[in-house]
Amino acid sequence: MGTVSAVDRDRVPKQDRSRATRQRLLEAAVACLGEHGWAGSTVSVVAERAGVSRGAAQHHFPTREDLFTAAVEYVAEERSTALRALFPQGAAGDRRAVVAALVDLYTGPLFRAALHLWVAASNEEQLRPRVTELEARVGRETHRIAVELLGADESVPGVRERVQGLLDMARGLGLANLLTDDGPRRDRVVAQWAALLDEALG
Amino acid sequence: MGTVSAVDRDRVPKQDRSRATRQRLLEAAVACLGEHGWAGSTVSVVAERAGVSRGAAQHHFPTREDLFTAAVEYVAEERSTALRALFPQGAAGDRRAVVAALVDLYTGPLFRAALHLWVAASNEEQLRPRVTELEARVGRETHRIAVELLGADESVPGVRERVQGLLDMARGLGLANLLTDDGPRRDRVVAQWAALLDEALG
Repeated sequence: MGTVSAVDRDRVPKQDRSRATRQRLLEAAVACLGEHGWAGSTVSVVAERAGVSRGAAQHHFPTREDLFTAAVEYVAEERSTALRALFPQGAAGDRRAVVAALVDLYTGPLFRAALHLWVAASNEEQLRPRVTELEARVGRETHRIAVELLGADESVPGVRERVQGLLDMARGLGLANLLTDDGPRRDRVVAQWAALLDEALG
Repeated sequence: MGTVSAVDRDRVPKQDRSRATRQRLLEAAVACLGEHGWAGSTVSVVAERAGVSRGAAQHHFPTREDLFTAAVEYVAEERSTALRALFPQGAAGDRRAVVAALVDLYTGPLFRAALHLWVAASNEEQLRPRVTELEARVGRETHRIAVELLGADESVPGVRERVQGLLDMARGLGLANLLTDDGPRRDRVVAQWAALLDEALG
């Protein structure tokens, strides 16, 4: 038993270090994509930014596609967790505030990074199936959170499409925010559409 | 007079040829952007695709930025003209059909090309102010057409933001269509929101 404990003590910090390295790489990859786009985002650039050797980076992520799809997925999960934590009371809360928070998912560095990956995937055969699958997974999870926090009853005909349309609008608003600060206009649009949706969800 | 007429006869075909060359370059530029993205779209590649010498291309468009912003603007104008022609009766027509046609503006090769230019502009200082200005101009024109064809009365509080939200949703739906054919889902979302908007515009 004494020997096993010693082995465990050695192993746990090593796993922790490995997890910390992985996380630094993922965060650096998202920042890099947002700032330099896909063309300027290589494993080497990310490794340097994260303060990790290229070899260590490749140990965690054998290919460039592995690194960047994992990065977008990781940050999307972080955002989902944060969003649920914002509304612990779920559907019982303020529905218009939920709409505003859902729209906020599509502004900021994660959306910017995901957009670069998405657009690159439309022209790169190697990237395309990976990003298509990632996008479907993240999209389903976001829809699930939206339904839950809005207290939407999808057994009512049309409700599913109304929630989807809201998320499509949020994505479009994110795109409109890419080159200029579209915040004030966005707030007015969101206020109007949140009211429409509030009525439409009954 | 005889001499002037001869000069005119010589000049008119030359202007026509010049206009035709310009148009071929613009159309090739949009196709090139959609297929190869900004990184793969140079003046040389477009000139070759259009069957025009690089010198002739540079005579029409001195810089790469000139060529691609002009191309997106040209095709956006073509689309606007086509959209107005689809609904010659304007606001008197079927509002839900107008919503579907507005959403269609954001699928297809023009949206794909504009998206590449937009995303590239977010990281390239030389491109950014040009695309920001282009986007604002095209956005205003699209809003104007939407208000006109929907018969929306923007003096009513909230109507302006509802029309804007529709165009934001259309942009988000366009993005969702980039990697996969999202047509069937899009049709269902558009049907639901067109009905809501129809009520909301009174």
